[in-house]
Amino acid sequence: MKVYGDSQSGNCYKIQLLCALLDLEHEWVSVNVLAGGTGTPEFVARNPNRKIPVLELDDGRCLWESNAIINYLAAGSALLPADRFALAKVQQWQFFEQYSHEPYIAVARFIAKYLGLPEARRAEYESKQAGGHKALAVMEAQLKQTPYLAGGQLTTADVSLYAYTHVAGEGGFDLAGYPAIRAWLERIAAQPKYLAMA
Amino acid sequence: MKVYGDSQSGNCYKIQLLCALLDLEHEWVSVNVLAGGTGTPEFVARNPNRKIPVLELDDGRCLWESNAIINYLAAGSALLPADRFALAKVQQWQFFEQYSHEPYIAVARFIAKYLGLPEARRAEYESKQAGGHKALAVMEAQLKQTPYLAGGQLTTADVSLYAYTHVAGEGGFDLAGYPAIRAWLERIAAQPKYLAMA
Repeated sequence: MKVYGDSQSGNCYKIQLLCALLDLEHEWVSVNVLAGGTGTPEFVARNPNRKIPVLELDDGRCLWESNAIINYLAAGSALLPADRFALAKVQQWQFFEQYSHEPYIAVARFIAKYLGLPEARRAEYESKQAGGHKALAVMEAQLKQTPYLAGGQLTTADVSLYAYTHVAGEGGFDLAGYPAIRAWLERIAAQPKYLAMA
Repeated sequence: MKVYGDSQSGNCYKIQLLCALLDLEHEWVSVNVLAGGTGTPEFVARNPNRKIPVLELDDGRCLWESNAIINYLAAGSALLPADRFALAKVQQWQFFEQYSHEPYIAVARFIAKYLGLPEARRAEYESKQAGGHKALAVMEAQLKQTPYLAGGQLTTADVSLYAYTHVAGEGGFDLAGYPAIRAWLERIAAQPKYLAMA
């Protein structure tokens, strides 16, 4: 299988971390988004929504959306619970990630780290701070109760939320006030097959 | 089981439509968001992210995020495929819905329908149009190829995307240019146990 992505994107890093944790071999195909790599006819045929990452199976079928990809890859492993309610909790945290976390924390990081916080986008950057801290507070409340987001075991929900949370500082989010999140980050980084972000 | 929600919210309607299609009995508990109903200590204990809908099981366990809830309720039914790749495709479309569709189409509808398109939010409303049409074009391309989003059968992905697409006009999105979407909307509304939005 092939993964089309950019190693500096948190959404793409989710796939790399998941593949490392589960020892899944794959071919990595670098796509340069800023240079228009997601707009070529070949790429659009793989993902009409023109976003990375994309998983391409050996038979040519393609799957997009980072959280759908890692759940697909983790099916049958210890990272995806078989229990119906536990599985729903994993998805709950992943939808939270895409709607209530990523649009604030990842976007603030993008504006600061990749665009160099230009004046024209400072107001947008500032506007992301409250939403990001709200998301972090929701995670902190859960992680005070359970070692991982969906309960006692590491799941794909943790992979999904680790990606941008562990680099939240690059978006201006100080994690000092979130001790349960910091302990959780360390717990994940201590996994035997952990892979750091490029 | 209880569902906490607001019948005029598309995210809450997903649960109502899914329950109708599968004949699932539930108690509906109305929550008035604009009056602060998602900020009470009782509500926050059910969902620390302070959003509707929330599913409360008879044993008191709670689940939030509309797409996670409908996947939980549809487990084992014809609306959620057992095949690993087909299931991943359902999730792909649901994550697309939350990241690339809802923030444009549902938010534009909210500004127009509920807030009456005030001048102070007109620029934001206008800014949502391009993203909404981009999402509709992605759906149109898929629905030209398959009768439902994840393939030949109705799934929870269709329930997720039907909710705000069928009222996209209220957000200023003319569906005249999307014949495959319009045929798909009719296909869903023709389901024997279909329930219209309140």
